[in-house]
Amino acid sequence: MVKVGIIGAGRIGKVHTKSICNLVKNAEIKTIADPFMNEETDKWAHSMGVANTTKDYKEILADPEIDAVLICSSTNTHSPISIEAIKAGKHVFCEKPIDHDVAKIKEVMDALKDSDVKYQVGFNRRFDHNFEAVKNAVTAGQIGDPHIIKVTSRDPEPPSAEYVKVSGGIFLDMTIHDFDMVRFLAGCDATEVYVQSAVLVDPSIGEAGDVDTAVITLQMENGAIAVIDNSRKAAYGYDQRAEVFGSKGMVATVNDTQSSAVISTAEGVTGEKPLYFFLERYMDSFAKEMNCFIDAIENNTDTPLGVEDGLKPVIMGLAAKKSVEEHRPVKISEIQL
Amino acid sequence: MVKVGIIGAGRIGKVHTKSICNLVKNAEIKTIADPFMNEETDKWAHSMGVANTTKDYKEILADPEIDAVLICSSTNTHSPISIEAIKAGKHVFCEKPIDHDVAKIKEVMDALKDSDVKYQVGFNRRFDHNFEAVKNAVTAGQIGDPHIIKVTSRDPEPPSAEYVKVSGGIFLDMTIHDFDMVRFLAGCDATEVYVQSAVLVDPSIGEAGDVDTAVITLQMENGAIAVIDNSRKAAYGYDQRAEVFGSKGMVATVNDTQSSAVISTAEGVTGEKPLYFFLERYMDSFAKEMNCFIDAIENNTDTPLGVEDGLKPVIMGLAAKKSVEEHRPVKISEIQL
Amino acid sequence: MVKVGIIGAGRIGKVHTKSICNLVKNAEIKTIADPFMNEETDKWAHSMGVANTTKDYKEILADPEIDAVLICSSTNTHSPISIEAIKAGKHVFCEKPIDHDVAKIKEVMDALKDSDVKYQVGFNRRFDHNFEAVKNAVTAGQIGDPHIIKVTSRDPEPPSAEYVKVSGGIFLDMTIHDFDMVRFLAGCDATEVYVQSAVLVDPSIGEAGDVDTAVITLQMENGAIAVIDNSRKAAYGYDQRAEVFGSKGMVATVNDTQSSAVISTAEGVTGEKPLYFFLERYMDSFAKEMNCFIDAIENNTDTPLGVEDGLKPVIMGLAAKKSVEEHRPVKISEIQL
Amino acid sequence: MVKVGIIGAGRIGKVHTKSICNLVKNAEIKTIADPFMNEETDKWAHSMGVANTTKDYKEILADPEIDAVLICSSTNTHSPISIEAIKAGKHVFCEKPIDHDVAKIKEVMDALKDSDVKYQVGFNRRFDHNFEAVKNAVTAGQIGDPHIIKVTSRDPEPPSAEYVKVSGGIFLDMTIHDFDMVRFLAGCDATEVYVQSAVLVDPSIGEAGDVDTAVITLQMENGAIAVIDNSRKAAYGYDQRAEVFGSKGMVATVNDTQSSAVISTAEGVTGEKPLYFFLERYMDSFAKEMNCFIDAIENNTDTPLGVEDGLKPVIMGLAAKKSVEEHRPVKISEIQL
Repeated sequence: MVKVGIIGAGRIGKVHTKSICNLVKNAEIKTIADPFMNEETDKWAHSMGVANTTKDYKEILADPEIDAVLICSSTNTHSPISIEAIKAGKHVFCEKPIDHDVAKIKEVMDALKDSDVKYQVGFNRRFDHNFEAVKNAVTAGQIGDPHIIKVTSRDPEPPSAEYVKVSGGIFLDMTIHDFDMVRFLAGCDATEVYVQSAVLVDPSIGEAGDVDTAVITLQMENGAIAVIDNSRKAAYGYDQRAEVFGSKGMVATVNDTQSSAVISTAEGVTGEKPLYFFLERYMDSFAKEMNCFIDAIENNTDTPLGVEDGLKPVIMGLAAKKSVEEHRPVKISEIQL
Repeated sequence: MVKVGIIGAGRIGKVHTKSICNLVKNAEIKTIADPFMNEETDKWAHSMGVANTTKDYKEILADPEIDAVLICSSTNTHSPISIEAIKAGKHVFCEKPIDHDVAKIKEVMDALKDSDVKYQVGFNRRFDHNFEAVKNAVTAGQIGDPHIIKVTSRDPEPPSAEYVKVSGGIFLDMTIHDFDMVRFLAGCDATEVYVQSAVLVDPSIGEAGDVDTAVITLQMENGAIAVIDNSRKAAYGYDQRAEVFGSKGMVATVNDTQSSAVISTAEGVTGEKPLYFFLERYMDSFAKEMNCFIDAIENNTDTPLGVEDGLKPVIMGLAAKKSVEEHRPVKISEIQL
Repeated sequence: MVKVGIIGAGRIGKVHTKSICNLVKNAEIKTIADPFMNEETDKWAHSMGVANTTKDYKEILADPEIDAVLICSSTNTHSPISIEAIKAGKHVFCEKPIDHDVAKIKEVMDALKDSDVKYQVGFNRRFDHNFEAVKNAVTAGQIGDPHIIKVTSRDPEPPSAEYVKVSGGIFLDMTIHDFDMVRFLAGCDATEVYVQSAVLVDPSIGEAGDVDTAVITLQMENGAIAVIDNSRKAAYGYDQRAEVFGSKGMVATVNDTQSSAVISTAEGVTGEKPLYFFLERYMDSFAKEMNCFIDAIENNTDTPLGVEDGLKPVIMGLAAKKSVEEHRPVKISEIQL
Repeated sequence: MVKVGIIGAGRIGKVHTKSICNLVKNAEIKTIADPFMNEETDKWAHSMGVANTTKDYKEILADPEIDAVLICSSTNTHSPISIEAIKAGKHVFCEKPIDHDVAKIKEVMDALKDSDVKYQVGFNRRFDHNFEAVKNAVTAGQIGDPHIIKVTSRDPEPPSAEYVKVSGGIFLDMTIHDFDMVRFLAGCDATEVYVQSAVLVDPSIGEAGDVDTAVITLQMENGAIAVIDNSRKAAYGYDQRAEVFGSKGMVATVNDTQSSAVISTAEGVTGEKPLYFFLERYMDSFAKEMNCFIDAIENNTDTPLGVEDGLKPVIMGLAAKKSVEEHRPVKISEIQL
């Protein structure tokens, strides 16, 4: 039984708490830390069977009984807490992105070098049933060599302008998942990025120095071309699809819905909208990634998504930003490591 | 927190144990009883956090701490244990069918008459996301008055001839779920049943005195005509669909699959088969029905599926058997209560 | 080049005229006859390149240049004109049904006995791309032995009460196509029919002595069970589907639409309704059946749908009527030939 | 009745011949010209009801009875014959592309300036039922302002290396249809093009100086971003889809198939591959575009696709070629007119 401490009791911290309590066999949460820990959260934690809560995450790092930590705090704390936790000998599950700054991720990598600690990054979509099926078809050779990889990723609602300002921009905040997906489906890295982007959803996003609509083309190492299309607002809900086209065929998915019911009337033939947002769509994948992390600890194997997998999408995001700024294709190698 | 005892640790008993442990908030299993309780099951029960196991279900009934029992034992014990439990003042969740014999179900009904005990029957499919969506469309008036109700229900594999002999026959064992579904979707009872049936899957089922393929037509009280088609073996897996056609339109569902991935190659365009069987397809519904049962206890409200809802499909099944024997439409009122 | 005369310039006569002019290679219409031939129809016929029009179909039968006739007149004239045409040595394409009276169809059969004339009945749906694909899958053994055959057939609008009175009733007018489809897909005849029916769409249909909603169960010679569901009014349009379930699997179709466009908005995900009615849905099949008829003449082969294929669905329809009247399953052999 | 001459009796010349003979009401082909006219083609033409054939297209231009010509000859002859025909006062339907050279298209435009001749370019896909439905949804405002336009266009088989050499390259030969589609769906012109391309299908295409796989991003005048993905070889057949995503929602199409039959077996759930290639997929659209051309002549209205609509996609194709050569986004305005 792996004893776990959770650092950060926001939305994603709560998702992982629920997963571990209900769906992860060999893990048990001992402590949840959050600087804004209050009565309500404390009560909720206890109702979930968590023994302790604290405002100070250092209590978790100092607790010799705790084997592993989940870093679910704000992005700017991911890399320093990662390093502290590694030094404290705790296995680390860190939410994406590790950092917006490559240098800081390199520091985490350095800390890991002389350590036996397991490190996993929270790119949960790799564990989604649809994307797993796409990946499996590719890996099994059913579509031959990949030629064109398409990822559609559109959110149901744009974030607030305040959030946009601290988010690192759409490429490090939202597209970063799609960059990981492209790497996952292609089975290799990108060598070049080109972005065509616009502010079409909300002018305040533009005023905050970001874009809200983008088509991103990537040259992959294996010769395939990948293309991601993003929007901060799809009126019909969360649009999450992938298609891989190759020498022998194509594999493609559609969105998940609450049910398959279709209603036919004089007005038309109507089905359900996609599941609303990531909590609805990806709940299963959060439990699966956590089970993989716990398994890697228990069996002393590699985690499925190491610190390098956390670094690469950040580099792709920085290259994408540069492509927008300089309006040209940008080589991944141009981003200074 | 409702304290629960589970009677019967077979397949369905284990399903409910998992649901309650992982997905039902306000319930806690204190004891699991099974006449064949062995070391393995005992170990499994403890790993799920269950405190006690026993070979004697009467220990559960005698335990003043236990509020509710789940009767997951063999069908012939459902009605006597129901009565014992009711007399012991325990709330009862009873797997379907309550009994093959109407008289015995009436005894359960009698026992309930002077009791405050909650009673729920395990027609879990009403809690399935697809059938719920069909029902909601009907209830919301989106398809107008129901005219034709169609239920397709086909199993992936036929049961053994041994099982068939004690099963009560296809209508009481398998179609009974579809009879409940027809009542659920029509919002009323049937008045007449006609069956066209055959042994096409496995001759040993015929030798055991049963059929394995059937088309069942039902006249409903509200004027609608319902039709169920059953097979004991669908080569492609568990086929579970419903369609309601009415004065304003139609609502219909398709099967659930593990993913929406479709692979297109020179050979064709291929999607996934339906989820394999009821454990895969209906897992969510088992948790939902249990939450409803616990809620009814906690809030002292009616359960969504009372003892009458357990009785009616049995009567429909007996009428269906008579229709096969006498090769004619049989009125529901012909079945002696 | 086969020279053709068309008897009857109503809706279906015009459909065949268009098909032959535009899509049938080796046929040419010489004359169109209609007792109500007027200026407008005459003008239309000439615009289609038809040389002659007349009020008297006997002109066609007497014309030695004409090889084949299409009988598109009112149902009560089908059998007498068939016999006259056969005696005049003309090949006959006769719209369905040949007659409502089995004795009269037998007279046509008698007339054909000593004749070299080709005779084809207009069950056009056999030539529809979807039903052809279902049949091909069955014939190719892809679904094994058929166990359950399902045909859904619902019209977009009920006929007038006046039409209902002379139509021979729903089974001889509408279901007759589905009876043919069941024979086509099963590859054999029915032995028994049971009908559950109701008047749910339009009370005036009931007053005219007919029903408008029906579920028809058929026992087929090969052991399969067939079930047809009919409604005179589907609010969403013409619903024409088939499913064959067998020992190795299932083949099923959905409705045709004008396009595959699906619109996703905040309100839902909406596709198109089925093509409106038989002219839209089955236009291709009308040309295909005609090409088959002309080919049979040119190559002196059997037509794909002989006079027996015209007789059998009428018998099934009469058995269905008897089933409604006597509220019991009716053997096909009970219908006097 | 418009009298038509067809110049070029190759594949597309034959398609238009069939359309006009069978499906275009007010047109009649008088003469077909082809430099390689032989006995077989002559026989075929007469079987279609065409009066004359010739090796010399100038006979058609000199024939005072002929109102309109269809230029279906090799691409390099399109612009000179267009000019000759215009000068001869014949209405012109010209297959795409008018020319690979902008200057030559400008000469056609000059010739048209002082003429009453109707001119239509053969971008038939605008008349396809699926793309029409997408366009209609956009025009009706159902998806709001377009933000992202996606066109998937993949051929079933690559052309020969010989053909590739004279084709003008993938962008002028194949993508040109998609450039037109993007203009059609966006309702405006592109301002910039960026291409990521590769030789992944057939090395001989690369040796011929062309690419066979491409993702093309376009900035549209109305702010939308368009993305086309092309492959010269889709193993599963002709892949022709479009999706428009906007402020209020999305409209998307899937491929057409011969039937909707889906076969479910132990091996999987299999549907049909897309219709094989453009002759199968777009046959209806060829008839529709021709009816529009004939209508424009008869009613003296504008054709739906004038000479400008022939010019714009060529410019987009030249910009795409430049983008590949210089590996950068290229403004449409950089292409010299």
